[in-house]
Amino acid sequence: MQDQVVDIAVIGAGPAGLSAAINGRARGKSVRLLSAENNYLSKAEQVDNYLGYYQVSGAQMMESFLQHTRQMGVYLEKGKAANILVLGDRFLINFNGEVIQAKTVILASGVSKAKEIPGEKEFLGKGVSYCATCDGMLYRQKTAVVWGLSQEAAQEANFLNEIGVQVVYVSNKQRALGINSAIEYREGSVQSIEKSGDRFRITLKEETVLSDVLFILRDSIAPNSLIEGLETRDGYIAVNRFMETNIPGFFAAGDCTGKPLQVSKAVGEGLVAAQQAAKYIDEKM
Amino acid sequence: MQDQVVDIAVIGAGPAGLSAAINGRARGKSVRLLSAENNYLSKAEQVDNYLGYYQVSGAQMMESFLQHTRQMGVYLEKGKAANILVLGDRFLINFNGEVIQAKTVILASGVSKAKEIPGEKEFLGKGVSYCATCDGMLYRQKTAVVWGLSQEAAQEANFLNEIGVQVVYVSNKQRALGINSAIEYREGSVQSIEKSGDRFRITLKEETVLSDVLFILRDSIAPNSLIEGLETRDGYIAVNRFMETNIPGFFAAGDCTGKPLQVSKAVGEGLVAAQQAAKYIDEKM
Repeated sequence: MQDQVVDIAVIGAGPAGLSAAINGRARGKSVRLLSAENNYLSKAEQVDNYLGYYQVSGAQMMESFLQHTRQMGVYLEKGKAANILVLGDRFLINFNGEVIQAKTVILASGVSKAKEIPGEKEFLGKGVSYCATCDGMLYRQKTAVVWGLSQEAAQEANFLNEIGVQVVYVSNKQRALGINSAIEYREGSVQSIEKSGDRFRITLKEETVLSDVLFILRDSIAPNSLIEGLETRDGYIAVNRFMETNIPGFFAAGDCTGKPLQVSKAVGEGLVAAQQAAKYIDEKM
Repeated sequence: MQDQVVDIAVIGAGPAGLSAAINGRARGKSVRLLSAENNYLSKAEQVDNYLGYYQVSGAQMMESFLQHTRQMGVYLEKGKAANILVLGDRFLINFNGEVIQAKTVILASGVSKAKEIPGEKEFLGKGVSYCATCDGMLYRQKTAVVWGLSQEAAQEANFLNEIGVQVVYVSNKQRALGINSAIEYREGSVQSIEKSGDRFRITLKEETVLSDVLFILRDSIAPNSLIEGLETRDGYIAVNRFMETNIPGFFAAGDCTGKPLQVSKAVGEGLVAAQQAAKYIDEKM
């Protein structure tokens, strides 16, 4: 895969991401569809206001959407897009430790429910990391606090432990299921991170821990932490009517661009983003 | 009807108009859905890129959309919105000669295929009219050139003739079917209109006719002729991300707001316009 460059990488598989995927295909572009979690539409009891679907459950609607996407030849790849770099005329996406190269990216990651903690942004890449698989090796024989907020967090903590990182794992009880017995566990959450000499002081509910790094393992990553320099407005990604962000070749669609947080809007924006991405590729390359 | 004020008048019954209608209803607003002609989506052989519908014909898709709209309690009223006036906090819509009062308007009239002729805009309301039913009585015992471009044009010409207007009817042969034998007929089209003393010189293919008025009877009316002062950009209605035009309470959605001219975009914009209209009503009234 290392040498293949996909035309459009779609991150997120809710209505916006799926609409982007089928419309990328409809324009003859290659598409990879990357997504961490099941879309919350699946949990909606009933949706009445997406034209053509009356009184169906969110789960039925999502299944119908996914089926359409498969019929257009796009298959969902489950995993986490940890960060994205711009390198010349392409994007490098760190996805489950694989580096995916893409000519364009459409971010359709929904609304991030994550709230940043004090120090998180300041030390990102210099003591805060979102991806154990990516950065773990840098911390062999060192100490790490791992804050497990995602379903796979326990596994990632185990991985760090196995490669020789000394781990303190912080999470609620459910997210702690399956961690190695060799890992220190603290129930609760992380409050903040500050510099302390060469290391970091990480504040938990009732104590502070000195550590070389803090891994924050969420299901989704705030968009402006995913790629450097992405402009936001009122907490949403800033886009124009063509779903262009301030980064050329990088588009956004759906809830992550702002209200209304609705299926129809997401589907429409997915289409616009995909067509604009296709145009961008055709004009540039 | 004269005294009833509808919350949202939707003009146009393609995907944008229908999505606006169901979303107006979903927000608990009263909706009237007004449209002249069948949407051209019905003629599409196959549509693959509206999420959830794979390999269906445009006609099937439209039927499914219309069914959903009826299920939400909105029924299409066929006819022509001839012009719209702003009066205080409401809009007055001239629809088939009936005056419909609305708190908000969502224009979803698609792409106007009409090309204006020289003099048309200059003399609109002062020698050019789009509506025989509305303005016919002003021209009793006078002369009119009627340019029939719509399916109902021949009937409108007959109406003028019957109330005592002296009519020259210009159209292609098909649009001339059924005109009264008392009406003078010229095959072809109108090229331009200019002032000539108290009357107008109307240029046809091979002759000019002096007349008191020119009726141009198209299926659709250019949006900025429908309501005074509506801003356009590159031939499309200028809207922001909330589907607001420059006229408060007047929204637009779908193809009339610009490219891409696609179902998904239209449906998304219809939702945004309807929700914004609902919000406008709630905040203002």
